[in-house]
Amino acid sequence: MRVEIWSDIACPWCYVGKARFEKALRAFPHRDEVEVVHRSFELDPDRARGDVQPVLTMLTRKYGMSTAQAQAGEDDLGAQAAAEGLEYRTTGRDHGNTFDMHRLLHLAGERGRQDELIQLLYRANFAEERSVFTEGEARLVELAEEAGLDAEEARRVLADPAAYADAVRADEREAAELGANGVPFFVLDRTYGVSGAQPAEVFTQALTQAWGERPALKLVEEEEAGACGPDGCAVPPRP
Amino acid sequence: MRVEIWSDIACPWCYVGKARFEKALRAFPHRDEVEVVHRSFELDPDRARGDVQPVLTMLTRKYGMSTAQAQAGEDDLGAQAAAEGLEYRTTGRDHGNTFDMHRLLHLAGERGRQDELIQLLYRANFAEERSVFTEGEARLVELAEEAGLDAEEARRVLADPAAYADAVRADEREAAELGANGVPFFVLDRTYGVSGAQPAEVFTQALTQAWGERPALKLVEEEEAGACGPDGCAVPPRP
Repeated sequence: MRVEIWSDIACPWCYVGKARFEKALRAFPHRDEVEVVHRSFELDPDRARGDVQPVLTMLTRKYGMSTAQAQAGEDDLGAQAAAEGLEYRTTGRDHGNTFDMHRLLHLAGERGRQDELIQLLYRANFAEERSVFTEGEARLVELAEEAGLDAEEARRVLADPAAYADAVRADEREAAELGANGVPFFVLDRTYGVSGAQPAEVFTQALTQAWGERPALKLVEEEEAGACGPDGCAVPPRP
Repeated sequence: MRVEIWSDIACPWCYVGKARFEKALRAFPHRDEVEVVHRSFELDPDRARGDVQPVLTMLTRKYGMSTAQAQAGEDDLGAQAAAEGLEYRTTGRDHGNTFDMHRLLHLAGERGRQDELIQLLYRANFAEERSVFTEGEARLVELAEEAGLDAEEARRVLADPAAYADAVRADEREAAELGANGVPFFVLDRTYGVSGAQPAEVFTQALTQAWGERPALKLVEEEEAGACGPDGCAVPPRP
């Protein structure tokens, strides 16, 4: 079974939701047959690359919250993160454009390091004093290297704005086609969708349901064709 | 869409079938949204690791063919391979156990180099004078390195018989569950199956059919949950 998770590094609920999903996955009897793929979604795609703001400033300007409301939201997020055993800095975080991080996550996907990298990006952004927005390329290369990627390759991808740009946009188009207008958004075997940082029990239910309803394979109507099996490799007439 | 291909390096129809599938894929309008995964299947799992035979010897002993019949089969395979633009040595190939190659293909899968490696293994086995059976670890490490893997890491995996062994067996168990008793066996989005080295047109039909019938997503019954979207990150009551 395959679970695709659309999320953004700038999305605190994605950080919390991933932990809740993983809690359910760890207890799922068929966990070894579940593959997890991370998909790109930008919360703030129109923000210019260098336009970085403290999160509280962004919340007050973009959503018209009072500073007290914005801080209360962060405090509540921090408490919910803590309940999942996650560190969460409720002050001093930055907000900005995440397109380059998503491009890097696609490289990491091709190198089998995607989960490592997204986890490090989340930790840097939400738990540590390591801004993923203000240090430019250097911080992202540092995290890519910690995730097991080749630093030189990561640098090359970041330096070329076209690298994996289409892959990021294709993920975002797919999210829209699947009806996701927020993240995190979980898709199980392209059959079941789960929206938001649901409690672990909801993920358990979704995993169980999707596993139980895996469709039987339909064999495509076909000609006699060459195949190798227990009786050797039969050679049919040429097609 | 995802296409999983069960195959074995020792399976000439897998080599030919892959080329036919790729011909269909290249012409498929949604090819950029198709992901291909290689899955393990051993034609001769009970053969001891060092037990290597010339293919013609294996065919006569294992399947009771005459040498002339076995050679005619190879010649016909060579002709069908040539029709797909593939080189194929109709004499002098070896046959043996492929478990270690499958373990290495799983490492390659995690490093994003699976297609490169399987293609190099096929070429070495079917087209070139580079036995994948008689040179022990050295040949496999050489091919892994050509595929872009780290030689040291490949060596470590080959030296540890447990590395990726479960992953190979899980693939084989899944093939049986899906009803595959020979290879190549293609599975599209876990919905459609195609058995054997079918002509490209059959793959085109299968891709088109599976693409058109991608199921609509069912949203799992769920509680109100934290999510970030165009209106910010709403904080619902704690679960």
